[in-house]
Amino acid sequence: MFTPRPIGHVNSPYQDTSAIPKGLGVKHDAEGVLTLLPEYAPGLTDIDGFSHLFVIWAFDRSEGFELIGHGPTDDRPHGVFATRSPRRPNPIGLTVVELLRREGARLFVRGVDMLDGTPILDIKPYMSSIPAEKLRRGWLAEAESRKQHS
Amino acid sequence: MFTPRPIGHVNSPYQDTSAIPKGLGVKHDAEGVLTLLPEYAPGLTDIDGFSHLFVIWAFDRSEGFELIGHGPTDDRPHGVFATRSPRRPNPIGLTVVELLRREGARLFVRGVDMLDGTPILDIKPYMSSIPAEKLRRGWLAEAESRKQHS
Repeated sequence: MFTPRPIGHVNSPYQDTSAIPKGLGVKHDAEGVLTLLPEYAPGLTDIDGFSHLFVIWAFDRSEGFELIGHGPTDDRPHGVFATRSPRRPNPIGLTVVELLRREGARLFVRGVDMLDGTPILDIKPYMSSIPAEKLRRGWLAEAESRKQHS
Repeated sequence: MFTPRPIGHVNSPYQDTSAIPKGLGVKHDAEGVLTLLPEYAPGLTDIDGFSHLFVIWAFDRSEGFELIGHGPTDDRPHGVFATRSPRRPNPIGLTVVELLRREGARLFVRGVDMLDGTPILDIKPYMSSIPAEKLRRGWLAEAESRKQHS
């Protein structure tokens, strides 16, 4: 197995997990900057043409994992692989961001939900979407429905 | 930084990278199975309700990386972070699959593009899409346009 190495880090407005918006219907529209280490900057060539990116990153301030746990979105417990919990067997995070502009090794983006200083592992172009009408969203849809009717 | 551990592996029809469909307009509708190690199976609780999943996995048969390279989709070179190349600083793959059904620790899915035996690092629910009309797809859209007009 490979040894993860940071290719850069996230500049975000969030210094503490309590500051990150959580829960049902939350919108992540905070702006931030993905700053790559200079030696990886050539890998950003042609990225400017994409409106959205996948950012793969490390939950570097999370410890241990919990296979079934409670999250901020629902009062019921769920399996970790059915949630975005930071307490995962491999503490890897995934965020879709909108690319606003690039300045050299810095990508200015909208939609960050990571802590400031989070190490970035990879960036990939967002090439296609599953149409919303084809998505089923399990416990999340149920929790939203319960909230609307409560 | 954490040490990646496989939580399971992919059963796919592809024994060799040459067998994986590549290039413009390719559809990934091959079926496969994500088999978790028994100790992680409880983490799949409630995953059944989701129609689509993100699978994060390791390119375990890729060596080294190339910041600018040629891929199978376009005759022009691109930065690695603007492509899905396996030769990345962190050899992490990301695939969206459709969940067909679960049998215990096994997820039967459609849309695999990994080699048979690929180690799985994480599984996350696909909760929302960027609407297709909001996507810009950079060099990929340009390459598609050139192909249509050639």
